[in-house]
Amino acid sequence: MRFPETVKKLKRGPQVVLPKDFGVIVGFTGVGSRSLVVDAGAGSGFLAIMLGNVAGKVVSYEWREEFATLAEENVKRTGLKNVEIVRRDIFLGIEEKGVDLVTLDLANSEKALGYAHEALRENGYAVGYLPNVEQVKRFVEECERLKFREIFTIECIVREILVRKEGCRPETKGLLHTAYLTFAKK
Amino acid sequence: MRFPETVKKLKRGPQVVLPKDFGVIVGFTGVGSRSLVVDAGAGSGFLAIMLGNVAGKVVSYEWREEFATLAEENVKRTGLKNVEIVRRDIFLGIEEKGVDLVTLDLANSEKALGYAHEALRENGYAVGYLPNVEQVKRFVEECERLKFREIFTIECIVREILVRKEGCRPETKGLLHTAYLTFAKK
Amino acid sequence: MRFPETVKKLKRGPQVVLPKDFGVIVGFTGVGSRSLVVDAGAGSGFLAIMLGNVAGKVVSYEWREEFATLAEENVKRTGLKNVEIVRRDIFLGIEEKGVDLVTLDLANSEKALGYAHEALRENGYAVGYLPNVEQVKRFVEECERLKFREIFTIECIVREILVRKEGCRPETKGLLHTAYLTFAKK
Amino acid sequence: MRFPETVKKLKRGPQVVLPKDFGVIVGFTGVGSRSLVVDAGAGSGFLAIMLGNVAGKVVSYEWREEFATLAEENVKRTGLKNVEIVRRDIFLGIEEKGVDLVTLDLANSEKALGYAHEALRENGYAVGYLPNVEQVKRFVEECERLKFREIFTIECIVREILVRKEGCRPETKGLLHTAYLTFAKK
Repeated sequence: MRFPETVKKLKRGPQVVLPKDFGVIVGFTGVGSRSLVVDAGAGSGFLAIMLGNVAGKVVSYEWREEFATLAEENVKRTGLKNVEIVRRDIFLGIEEKGVDLVTLDLANSEKALGYAHEALRENGYAVGYLPNVEQVKRFVEECERLKFREIFTIECIVREILVRKEGCRPETKGLLHTAYLTFAKK
Repeated sequence: MRFPETVKKLKRGPQVVLPKDFGVIVGFTGVGSRSLVVDAGAGSGFLAIMLGNVAGKVVSYEWREEFATLAEENVKRTGLKNVEIVRRDIFLGIEEKGVDLVTLDLANSEKALGYAHEALRENGYAVGYLPNVEQVKRFVEECERLKFREIFTIECIVREILVRKEGCRPETKGLLHTAYLTFAKK
Repeated sequence: MRFPETVKKLKRGPQVVLPKDFGVIVGFTGVGSRSLVVDAGAGSGFLAIMLGNVAGKVVSYEWREEFATLAEENVKRTGLKNVEIVRRDIFLGIEEKGVDLVTLDLANSEKALGYAHEALRENGYAVGYLPNVEQVKRFVEECERLKFREIFTIECIVREILVRKEGCRPETKGLLHTAYLTFAKK
Repeated sequence: MRFPETVKKLKRGPQVVLPKDFGVIVGFTGVGSRSLVVDAGAGSGFLAIMLGNVAGKVVSYEWREEFATLAEENVKRTGLKNVEIVRRDIFLGIEEKGVDLVTLDLANSEKALGYAHEALRENGYAVGYLPNVEQVKRFVEECERLKFREIFTIECIVREILVRKEGCRPETKGLLHTAYLTFAKK
């Protein structure tokens, strides 16, 4: 698994969002240095940190004390001043307003979409990181109910190519699936 | 083809770097709001603009007057102040120093790697956007000759998933290949 | 789309099973020259004909007169003597016994699984050609209910590689999805 | 790794052709119960045996005594009477005439193409199982030199889909590459 310097030496909880999935979130939302991002749940903080590296400000919600502490330590290690881990349950509401991007990586991400819709500016994006098809369906249905627009879902497969003296070919084994990503615009 | 707002309404030349490939460049290099990026050739300016959105400063080389003008107009439309199109041939040298990322999308990208190596800071990345395997091999060989480290090559396949009342399935037809991306660290 | 000689010149209805999907059915079931196969619905007869080419005998059910006639004409054109198109509704039962493989490509394929189970010999396979995830789930559930064993589902992506003087690379655009294939052993 | 009953219990040498690749060979060549196939090298005999299951007759060349013995034992275990392992070097010539399909899985498969061309009937297929791009290029070049027609190269990616109570998603890790398959018609 390849990681950029930013997150390479950080402590990892059981599952982190990978650079490929972070990358396509950036690619398809156009999040950038002037953007305000709300993220939940922080987990190990990898997505928040990678987003913090390209965005103006990232607020990442995490109500589980253990993960909030881990994420906070990881943020500290990177030296990023624009990533804040807040100990709050996103299912109780989002305080930020005029948000450009809300990224949701939770067991029931669709349940935070109402709050995400309120928090987002016009044309802002909600993105769900959704390991299975059932979650995708619930997320898409809720996006439709809330009148999000241009809803689409993708999966991103990255294959490493070995370039060697003996010959050039894709790596034999590797990652086939992490999660589906659903994008929805307010 | 899905594009973020930033580049959606811009004029396109024959071929532009897509959000997915821009995204994995961001994901795997960790380029961010403090980074200085050199890009060549600008083409329609899509990659430079998408990079400008996340990076501190982007200088994009383009010696073909026609494309330089197109790219410049596109930059103007986005309102980005940190993306500069320079009318210069990158094969004659790179003026910038302490560069964090050099992205190369040229017919003979490997020939600019020597200059890229000089321009990059320690741990900075050179990335080649390379449509075919032969270009990948020449690029990798030149990276090895120049003592770049942690050289790796990937391809990124994005598949759209249709989520509909009638059922959930990947889109029938679509993009199978754009380019390989080779990453090399100084 | 590439087809072997056998089916290349046949008339096609709206959708035919492609060689790649037929191929993995053969690969994973081990169907061969001594096998008895039941297929439904025949459609244009492509799958039945490709199976007839490798199996001992294929009986393909089709209750829609129009398709039955098309399939029959296609079988005649190939000269295959071991492929029989029968005008019968598979949802009313399967007459054959000791069947080695039942292939199901219907809107509600899972509803034929009970009859398939009766018709199959021990260790025989039922295979569903299932365009979307919902069909896969219904098919798998019914397989489990009927005590089929070693149930698994795959998708097969075939990418063409262009090998040219100018360079070697995957084709730019093409097929991303046809159907999922679910295999279940009696 | 999933295998059909036919080959499941056989002894495997270091690398065997998988059902997916065997399957697409069958799918794209239309090899069937009346076909004469020549195969080399036999290795563990897996491809020869799977082909024997669908073809009229398979002759598999293997000059390495150790593998010839292993392949022969494997053939015996399957009970197939139409698969013959011959202790001969295919680079010295092919004795069979009017062959429908020649499958080549050797370090320098392209060097057997001249003999394959002589042995094949009109419209018969040569297929190369080629792990890397360099082998593909040499194989394709030699096919062109020998005036083979309709030359094309594919790769086949099979992804398993997990269908579970907790949700439906592709398997996390697995096989990304076995070999490219190049097809050429006489």
